[in-house]
Amino acid sequence: MESPKTFIKKREETLDVETIVKGILKGERASLARAITLIESEKTSHRKIGQHLLKEILPYTGNSMRIGITGIPGAGKSTFIDKFGTLLIEKGYKVAVLTIDPTSPFSHGSILGDKTRMEELAKKEEAFIRPSPTGGHLGGVHRKTREAILICEAAGFDIIIIETVGVGQSETDIRSMTDITLLLTITGSGDDLQGMKKGIMETADLIIVTKADGENRINALKAKKELEQVLKIFPQQSESSLPKVYAASSLTGEGFEEIWEGIQVFFQQVKLEGEFFKRRQNQLKDWLQGSLKEQLLYSFYSVDDLQKEYERLEELVVSGKLPVTEASEQLLNHFFEAIQKRK
Amino acid sequence: MESPKTFIKKREETLDVETIVKGILKGERASLARAITLIESEKTSHRKIGQHLLKEILPYTGNSMRIGITGIPGAGKSTFIDKFGTLLIEKGYKVAVLTIDPTSPFSHGSILGDKTRMEELAKKEEAFIRPSPTGGHLGGVHRKTREAILICEAAGFDIIIIETVGVGQSETDIRSMTDITLLLTITGSGDDLQGMKKGIMETADLIIVTKADGENRINALKAKKELEQVLKIFPQQSESSLPKVYAASSLTGEGFEEIWEGIQVFFQQVKLEGEFFKRRQNQLKDWLQGSLKEQLLYSFYSVDDLQKEYERLEELVVSGKLPVTEASEQLLNHFFEAIQKRK
Repeated sequence: MESPKTFIKKREETLDVETIVKGILKGERASLARAITLIESEKTSHRKIGQHLLKEILPYTGNSMRIGITGIPGAGKSTFIDKFGTLLIEKGYKVAVLTIDPTSPFSHGSILGDKTRMEELAKKEEAFIRPSPTGGHLGGVHRKTREAILICEAAGFDIIIIETVGVGQSETDIRSMTDITLLLTITGSGDDLQGMKKGIMETADLIIVTKADGENRINALKAKKELEQVLKIFPQQSESSLPKVYAASSLTGEGFEEIWEGIQVFFQQVKLEGEFFKRRQNQLKDWLQGSLKEQLLYSFYSVDDLQKEYERLEELVVSGKLPVTEASEQLLNHFFEAIQKRK
Repeated sequence: MESPKTFIKKREETLDVETIVKGILKGERASLARAITLIESEKTSHRKIGQHLLKEILPYTGNSMRIGITGIPGAGKSTFIDKFGTLLIEKGYKVAVLTIDPTSPFSHGSILGDKTRMEELAKKEEAFIRPSPTGGHLGGVHRKTREAILICEAAGFDIIIIETVGVGQSETDIRSMTDITLLLTITGSGDDLQGMKKGIMETADLIIVTKADGENRINALKAKKELEQVLKIFPQQSESSLPKVYAASSLTGEGFEEIWEGIQVFFQQVKLEGEFFKRRQNQLKDWLQGSLKEQLLYSFYSVDDLQKEYERLEELVVSGKLPVTEASEQLLNHFFEAIQKRK
């Protein structure tokens, strides 16, 4: 099997945006994969084709349910998605799974690994599983994942599941690109009750206690009840904005129908209240702002010798010979001079 | 009484960096206040004088103990600082108190308010109390507070206390500019035990249960013991890196001598281990990076018509007519063209 990179190299001359777009709109997997490889590429020529392509497919995007899945490592995210995705496909939906790993932006996700993690789902025609992209420049994983969402939507995927595989600030990252956040947790993780960060619980729209099977079933159901009690303590805007709590088993399938029901109710509600489009618009605004910031910094660091000058001035700052504000003003002036010379 | 702003206006022509620097090095309050007003000013001419001044005093900075005080509103920070600062002055030190309020960067702190909050300390010759600066551009409160620290050091203050008056992410802000962080807490705040965020406790070097007086004394001592137990659960690098816990009363003075002792031990330790200078150097590096980022963004938004163009493109992005990455590339090109025209 060829790697996507060799594939691009070979066909470079014949890469035709129109053909790929047509392929995507027909839902052809090869075109879909090729498009994502293009937007993930660090090569300027690929990025340009990728951006052109994005512009063409833009009118066909936005129609999916973008579902974020968060939870500590070991909470059973992969098996949950495997089961849940398979259930959705049985209901007639096309499901794409994208992973995001902001904590290790420079390590490549393993395609094989991801397919093994979601064995059932990986076999399905109607599923598309894509591992976390590497970071690189110009927005890194976030830009790439956001653009992959758009491409999957144009290819006709109804449900896009975005899974965090890192730890840390990933809840916020996921929320910045999805319509709903599912927080997965397990009993006895020390993470289910008081120990669970208030902030995380507040940003979850649905909380799912996983592994509710075998000897652990009773504990999981108990944890679900306790979580419901704890959540009531938090100040909420309304009873309906309280995140619903579920117990589920990826082995027996218990809880999955109820979760799907809960997700649908959530979408109906936010669409009725106008929150749905407002949230998506705000996500676009934030993305634009972030993208601009990153491109500004990237263009700064791409100027020849500026890195060297930065190190020289940093040394002066650290040794107490130059005030910080003056050093950064000097660096900025160097940057402007370099841009003026480009003319 | 004249406001600092009118003062500057009147003397604008006679503002002489050398005179102010000499005044600062002599410890003259008028020069000190004038210098801080200059670095806080949003006027370019003032900022330039301020930066020149900073460069001159830089060799005389760095010799203070920079102590950060954090804690939820109501934890008794002002009364603690009032008592603690007075104690330090009695011991022969000069004490400056700077406040930082990153949560409301655009509201002016009240000088009168701050002096009322620290009544005893405000009366002392050896104390200098400065309210939180307004945000504004180019780094806002953080840059201004960091530069005020340097000016106070040049003016001979041995101990600089930086107090957070906002809520939220302020613990991180304080740590980015101080050598030690004191976390103040009260009993029954729901914040003392499990409820207290692990992250906050881990970034505190000393934890102080305040209001250990009257009927509350027993409870405060109990809370101190419980906190010590809870802290032992957290993974620590060594026994000595465990934050020490104290109970203190700003009314009776109980605990204050022990706290001062604990602070001195902390400084001895980090200086011995080389951590002290490493931390200060890293703070300078981070500050430079942050400062550069802010100045880049500021220069972007200062370009004529760019705000308008930003809004136009944002509208296209939000309505789904333009991909985000293309919009930000277009904005960047506008920015570069504007800089090239400046030549």
